[in-house]
Amino acid sequence: MRGRILILHGPNLNLLGEREPEIYGYETLKDINEDLEGLCEDYNYQMHAFQSNSESELIEKIHEAQQIHDGIVFNPGAFTHYSIAIRDAISSVTIPVVEVHLSNVYQREEFRQHSVVSAVCIGKITGFGSHSYSLGIQALIQHLESKS
Amino acid sequence: MRGRILILHGPNLNLLGEREPEIYGYETLKDINEDLEGLCEDYNYQMHAFQSNSESELIEKIHEAQQIHDGIVFNPGAFTHYSIAIRDAISSVTIPVVEVHLSNVYQREEFRQHSVVSAVCIGKITGFGSHSYSLGIQALIQHLESKS
Amino acid sequence: MRGRILILHGPNLNLLGEREPEIYGYETLKDINEDLEGLCEDYNYQMHAFQSNSESELIEKIHEAQQIHDGIVFNPGAFTHYSIAIRDAISSVTIPVVEVHLSNVYQREEFRQHSVVSAVCIGKITGFGSHSYSLGIQALIQHLESKS
Amino acid sequence: MRGRILILHGPNLNLLGEREPEIYGYETLKDINEDLEGLCEDYNYQMHAFQSNSESELIEKIHEAQQIHDGIVFNPGAFTHYSIAIRDAISSVTIPVVEVHLSNVYQREEFRQHSVVSAVCIGKITGFGSHSYSLGIQALIQHLESKS
Amino acid sequence: MRGRILILHGPNLNLLGEREPEIYGYETLKDINEDLEGLCEDYNYQMHAFQSNSESELIEKIHEAQQIHDGIVFNPGAFTHYSIAIRDAISSVTIPVVEVHLSNVYQREEFRQHSVVSAVCIGKITGFGSHSYSLGIQALIQHLESKS
Amino acid sequence: MRGRILILHGPNLNLLGEREPEIYGYETLKDINEDLEGLCEDYNYQMHAFQSNSESELIEKIHEAQQIHDGIVFNPGAFTHYSIAIRDAISSVTIPVVEVHLSNVYQREEFRQHSVVSAVCIGKITGFGSHSYSLGIQALIQHLESKS
Amino acid sequence: MRGRILILHGPNLNLLGEREPEIYGYETLKDINEDLEGLCEDYNYQMHAFQSNSESELIEKIHEAQQIHDGIVFNPGAFTHYSIAIRDAISSVTIPVVEVHLSNVYQREEFRQHSVVSAVCIGKITGFGSHSYSLGIQALIQHLESKS
Amino acid sequence: MRGRILILHGPNLNLLGEREPEIYGYETLKDINEDLEGLCEDYNYQMHAFQSNSESELIEKIHEAQQIHDGIVFNPGAFTHYSIAIRDAISSVTIPVVEVHLSNVYQREEFRQHSVVSAVCIGKITGFGSHSYSLGIQALIQHLESKS
Amino acid sequence: MRGRILILHGPNLNLLGEREPEIYGYETLKDINEDLEGLCEDYNYQMHAFQSNSESELIEKIHEAQQIHDGIVFNPGAFTHYSIAIRDAISSVTIPVVEVHLSNVYQREEFRQHSVVSAVCIGKITGFGSHSYSLGIQALIQHLESKS
Amino acid sequence: MRGRILILHGPNLNLLGEREPEIYGYETLKDINEDLEGLCEDYNYQMHAFQSNSESELIEKIHEAQQIHDGIVFNPGAFTHYSIAIRDAISSVTIPVVEVHLSNVYQREEFRQHSVVSAVCIGKITGFGSHSYSLGIQALIQHLESKS
Amino acid sequence: MRGRILILHGPNLNLLGEREPEIYGYETLKDINEDLEGLCEDYNYQMHAFQSNSESELIEKIHEAQQIHDGIVFNPGAFTHYSIAIRDAISSVTIPVVEVHLSNVYQREEFRQHSVVSAVCIGKITGFGSHSYSLGIQALIQHLESKS
Amino acid sequence: MRGRILILHGPNLNLLGEREPEIYGYETLKDINEDLEGLCEDYNYQMHAFQSNSESELIEKIHEAQQIHDGIVFNPGAFTHYSIAIRDAISSVTIPVVEVHLSNVYQREEFRQHSVVSAVCIGKITGFGSHSYSLGIQALIQHLESKS
Repeated sequence: MRGRILILHGPNLNLLGEREPEIYGYETLKDINEDLEGLCEDYNYQMHAFQSNSESELIEKIHEAQQIHDGIVFNPGAFTHYSIAIRDAISSVTIPVVEVHLSNVYQREEFRQHSVVSAVCIGKITGFGSHSYSLGIQALIQHLESKS
Repeated sequence: MRGRILILHGPNLNLLGEREPEIYGYETLKDINEDLEGLCEDYNYQMHAFQSNSESELIEKIHEAQQIHDGIVFNPGAFTHYSIAIRDAISSVTIPVVEVHLSNVYQREEFRQHSVVSAVCIGKITGFGSHSYSLGIQALIQHLESKS
Repeated sequence: MRGRILILHGPNLNLLGEREPEIYGYETLKDINEDLEGLCEDYNYQMHAFQSNSESELIEKIHEAQQIHDGIVFNPGAFTHYSIAIRDAISSVTIPVVEVHLSNVYQREEFRQHSVVSAVCIGKITGFGSHSYSLGIQALIQHLESKS
Repeated sequence: MRGRILILHGPNLNLLGEREPEIYGYETLKDINEDLEGLCEDYNYQMHAFQSNSESELIEKIHEAQQIHDGIVFNPGAFTHYSIAIRDAISSVTIPVVEVHLSNVYQREEFRQHSVVSAVCIGKITGFGSHSYSLGIQALIQHLESKS
Repeated sequence: MRGRILILHGPNLNLLGEREPEIYGYETLKDINEDLEGLCEDYNYQMHAFQSNSESELIEKIHEAQQIHDGIVFNPGAFTHYSIAIRDAISSVTIPVVEVHLSNVYQREEFRQHSVVSAVCIGKITGFGSHSYSLGIQALIQHLESKS
Repeated sequence: MRGRILILHGPNLNLLGEREPEIYGYETLKDINEDLEGLCEDYNYQMHAFQSNSESELIEKIHEAQQIHDGIVFNPGAFTHYSIAIRDAISSVTIPVVEVHLSNVYQREEFRQHSVVSAVCIGKITGFGSHSYSLGIQALIQHLESKS
Repeated sequence: MRGRILILHGPNLNLLGEREPEIYGYETLKDINEDLEGLCEDYNYQMHAFQSNSESELIEKIHEAQQIHDGIVFNPGAFTHYSIAIRDAISSVTIPVVEVHLSNVYQREEFRQHSVVSAVCIGKITGFGSHSYSLGIQALIQHLESKS
Repeated sequence: MRGRILILHGPNLNLLGEREPEIYGYETLKDINEDLEGLCEDYNYQMHAFQSNSESELIEKIHEAQQIHDGIVFNPGAFTHYSIAIRDAISSVTIPVVEVHLSNVYQREEFRQHSVVSAVCIGKITGFGSHSYSLGIQALIQHLESKS
Repeated sequence: MRGRILILHGPNLNLLGEREPEIYGYETLKDINEDLEGLCEDYNYQMHAFQSNSESELIEKIHEAQQIHDGIVFNPGAFTHYSIAIRDAISSVTIPVVEVHLSNVYQREEFRQHSVVSAVCIGKITGFGSHSYSLGIQALIQHLESKS
Repeated sequence: MRGRILILHGPNLNLLGEREPEIYGYETLKDINEDLEGLCEDYNYQMHAFQSNSESELIEKIHEAQQIHDGIVFNPGAFTHYSIAIRDAISSVTIPVVEVHLSNVYQREEFRQHSVVSAVCIGKITGFGSHSYSLGIQALIQHLESKS
Repeated sequence: MRGRILILHGPNLNLLGEREPEIYGYETLKDINEDLEGLCEDYNYQMHAFQSNSESELIEKIHEAQQIHDGIVFNPGAFTHYSIAIRDAISSVTIPVVEVHLSNVYQREEFRQHSVVSAVCIGKITGFGSHSYSLGIQALIQHLESKS
Repeated sequence: MRGRILILHGPNLNLLGEREPEIYGYETLKDINEDLEGLCEDYNYQMHAFQSNSESELIEKIHEAQQIHDGIVFNPGAFTHYSIAIRDAISSVTIPVVEVHLSNVYQREEFRQHSVVSAVCIGKITGFGSHSYSLGIQALIQHLESKS
């Protein structure tokens, strides 16, 4: 095994696939996690996934990840736009974080185009549905391996 | 019984009636809930009330309501002004939500006049003290019954 | 009779029910006024209704109301967003004014979210169609009776 | 006769030709209306002209036009910049409205460059003196005839 | 008689002295006009006073004044802050206009500090209660006589 | 022949009629140019048309026009919103330029309502489809002939 | 003698009458002071005048005035727009201050329309040339005598 | 014992001393708390410390403090910039709160210079590393004792 | 062969690898293009690459791509921030465009965080160096194949 | 003696204790200076105090302090909000400066919440009345001694 | 020969001397270039001049200059205000660039006061007509020679 | 002798060369003045230099210069950004003023990019260290001699 990756899902993402499937697709969060787990195995990485609607649980998961994981692929959901506490959590750990979003936020409400976390992530992938996560995993692995 | 209504109270509302009664009145949250329960019974609706200072508990209560309730009367308190996560929770469920406020926010600080949740609620009632809740219940019931 | 209520309708509301019924419903202003009159009678209040497209007529109706009515339920229409003269008329009389709107202005153009009158009204009800008026009447009566 | 056109002139335009002729030209409003009437006749349209300094008279003329005219050529004068009530009057009727201005507002004070009515008119002609009206009539006729 | 002066009072000023006397004083508009008339007589000027809550009546009074009066002392009330139509009326006549206000608008709401008419008046007097008018008359007379 | 007119088409207008015909109509740029040429002939003017996606080619065409043409009817397309270089080209020549747009930019994205060129054109016509060009030609000819 | 008045002149006003007389008139500061002294005598007040280009000298003059004078007529010149230290000096004394300006600042650069001192003065007179000072003296005396 | 003081530490402060010691110093939160406890003892005050990454836990700790403590020294961390819910918690209790920050926020990102809680605290100390807390304790004690 | 992909490189990208290699890496544009060509072959796609410092050449390449390619991976460089002409070119073609950036623009100057093209692309990948292009190719292929 | 400290008091602070004692307390500047001198002696530091209403005197005092003092405790008063010259003076010397304020500026006018000097001071203490100075002295001494 | 200097002239500068000579003087670009060439010879530098209306030609000239010239004196004309592509070209080369402007942009339109290139040039000279170029050459030479 | 030039140095410039020499160079203000004096002699001009940290001294020096000097080369230092009093002093004299700065203010804090004096100077030179002064002298002499 080459390393460990944490997939973090922010608020309201537990509802994926169950509601508004015409917008967000028919895949549930469980489906997505299983697909990503397969992808990670192909690259010989171990993956853990965690979803929370709680800002503090996400902060603490980021703190813990420092000891356990080599990097994080993070969809902060609505916290993207205002949680400076999550921004500070990301900048207080040294492992790389990749920001991902399902929808193209640039085609939505004005306030969704402002992110307080982008400046402390290594990069950002947005607009490709659940495929944003798999691109994020590849980006993270490429980043990790280019450094070693 | 014609339906079920959830009354959601946001942060700091647990202190109602105990402090600053000259501003917020002498009614406690328990008093208000009991009054509203009577009102709902008159309309033949069952009511549940829930207060939390936690953004994630409110989000999860909104998620659950989808299975249990026909609509929500919601005083988001200070979250009104910045919790896009709560906004997203409201727009991810299909049951109607009525936004209520005790005080006339337009007579207070500038930042209290901006709401991130109004656009995803069906309507808004503000400034009538605890009576804002009873008007909200009537507005919700009228909305529910005009659709059936 | 317990008191007198004035219902004020601002500009363009004379067209209600005649045009764009898919948006504003099939009720005409006359229909609405009749319904509200019935509601007032139930509460033992006398109601007068007045519509005008003229800012000065509305100002003068507010001035006169001070002598005749116990309170006003007011839908200022487009004047909501810029008529500081109407705001000053409201704050120059001592009877309470409740602001009501048919549509949820928070789902419309940005400029409709700014109100110059809210700070001088006792409260605001928005988004419940013609039902906003009946909720406004109840809010006003509850306000009047809690003070006596 | 192919149709009827209303020419609406907003506040202060009654002074045209009488004052500041070096800026606004020596033509009075009466001269302009006569010229436009001739132009309409050439196209086989009947024209009525109406000037008012009163917002409510203009709103009501727009309401009435729906029954009588096929379209409006409208110079809202200073109301262009703040009368949302006139904007709402235009959007509450189904006949097309063409916005015209005598002077090039883009070369004048900053506040004259903001229009609250442009978004609800079919098009806008500005800067060509009294000729803006004749271009507006041609634009309106071309619009009416391309639809039939 | 050396000349004629028009005193123009904007919206809601008809209520002066009758309401909120602790703020605006116990003088009615009639009292003020009588005092000013005496002052004008001392200077050998004839004075007319006119109050209106209607923007269009004020515009037309300004238009007419051109034929009758040598200058205007104008308290535009709430129209100060948004009536570009009144601004245009002032700049379309050649007689001088002095802007006056009863209260010190700089100690009130932010929006009262913006005036759309100041740039087209010859000067502005604000904050001296009804004495603002008498100072305005003296300023106007001094202006008229310095030019002749 | 009374004069020469240049029709300038900015970026992406070469695609007219070929794509999104439901929005921009089925007329190609060639069709429009031919129609306008006929219109010019009727007025006894010679017309040349030029389209470019290149800012510098448009600038140089404006420079050259000074020697050859009596005026320009210009649809600057997207350059309207940011090309100060084109603005400067227009103000560096003495022949009149009329700005035209196919669509009503006031009904589109916010950024399309800002024009850096309007202040240096003699007037602006917007929202009448390809007819905006013919109105522009008439406005230009009227302007040219009123000066001679 | 009924009282003492301080006339304060801010920066660059020492040049009055000597330069740009076509703008500021041919009166020097000495001429103005002499005229005002006469006016004060008529009202039976003693007047002192002081000009300084130094912010600290003006602050200290305001501090001292508290012991000596009954009120101040102050033209703060350019300090109007940024000297919060002078604002604080005015609000730290209890004698009334009247703000005056020679020119109509509303017809000049944007930044001249913002005043940091107006909110702590009793009123403001602007645009009447050196006559602004005499109106200011009358306003001050009227204020002083209405209180005693 | 003269009283009880609560030290509240906001999100991410649990990582103090463990990470980025070159910025935040080598002291852990435990070290700081022990030092402060000693300081409080010297003043004869009992101290409790509480850290949380959770907004709701901090809100509830503030609510409880009202019953137990005489005042709070609070480092709200990232919540400083957006948690209006915490602001409301502070203003809903009557015990004094002193806001402290480790770093000089004025030398960091623009968004860190805006605080939503400062207006409801009695004062603010920022930039002195862990010493900000001990200064905060002294400020609080001085405040408490000056009132008794 | 399953399809054709165009790789577009905007202004200044011709200098890649030759200058500031410590920032942008030692890979030249030629190296990158060769790597991407290999990647495309693995997926059985044909790739063409094009770099230009000219806005009009990029616009025309986008126009042409409609006939030849199935999608575009585009790094618009500095044009990202102001070229509305390129935005219009993208929205005038029907093939999908993926926006990519080498650096994390959110860690650079404020103005680099505003993009005029994001809203018309299907998604955006930023911050992963030359790997952003390969992620973009995978995102595009996944998009193309999910639709067929 | 361990070192020398300069206490700098900005404009209007000479009036402390003499005026508005209900706001600023009954202590005069002399009282405060004597108390602080005692405090400094306790720490074995020599203290000098200097007050000026003059920006240039404060600048020059800061310049001189470099030769004489080990640090400055500075209450810049109103200069806090606009004197970039004082900011530059602080950043041109190498001795540490602590910014202090008597009142909680965050509860006052909006403009008082902006400081041009905070970014060049080591820290800031605000809201504790004259005690802000003693906390400032302790903060400065702690800073000086932690470095040696 | 001590070195080589490139003089770059941006859009519309080809018209210099031919038009609006009362503003821009009677010197053509050719005249200016000849004068500057003489000046360079005096300093023993070789000079090349290049004018273009095309953003991409200017970008490429800057790229090439790196191989050939020791520094650039650049008048970017209208590109100053929006061409981030030119800004990036300047920052991608290591030779120094001096920004020059003929007119005092601070006396012109607001938008001309914003420059996107100033931050990447070594300095800026503006307002001295064609003499701005000669001052720029001297500034550049002084910079080059102070470094060697 | 052909004329007289005043070199004005604003606040904090007395420290030049003594502190932060790595930024501002090792030249003292005395060195710079001597160099500039030599330069002026070469051109047959007499030079006087004056430095002050006091706004009022600089204002008065500008007033006096009118009688003595033919022009001013002025580095207003921090006053550049807020001293409207100095701006007014410059515009109240008729001799030309050239604004100079040592550093490239466009690479420093945002607030340093705003100048209140540029619009009343004939031109501006910034970024060339002490050489900015010599370029300023040349620009001034060239300006003076081109007019005679």
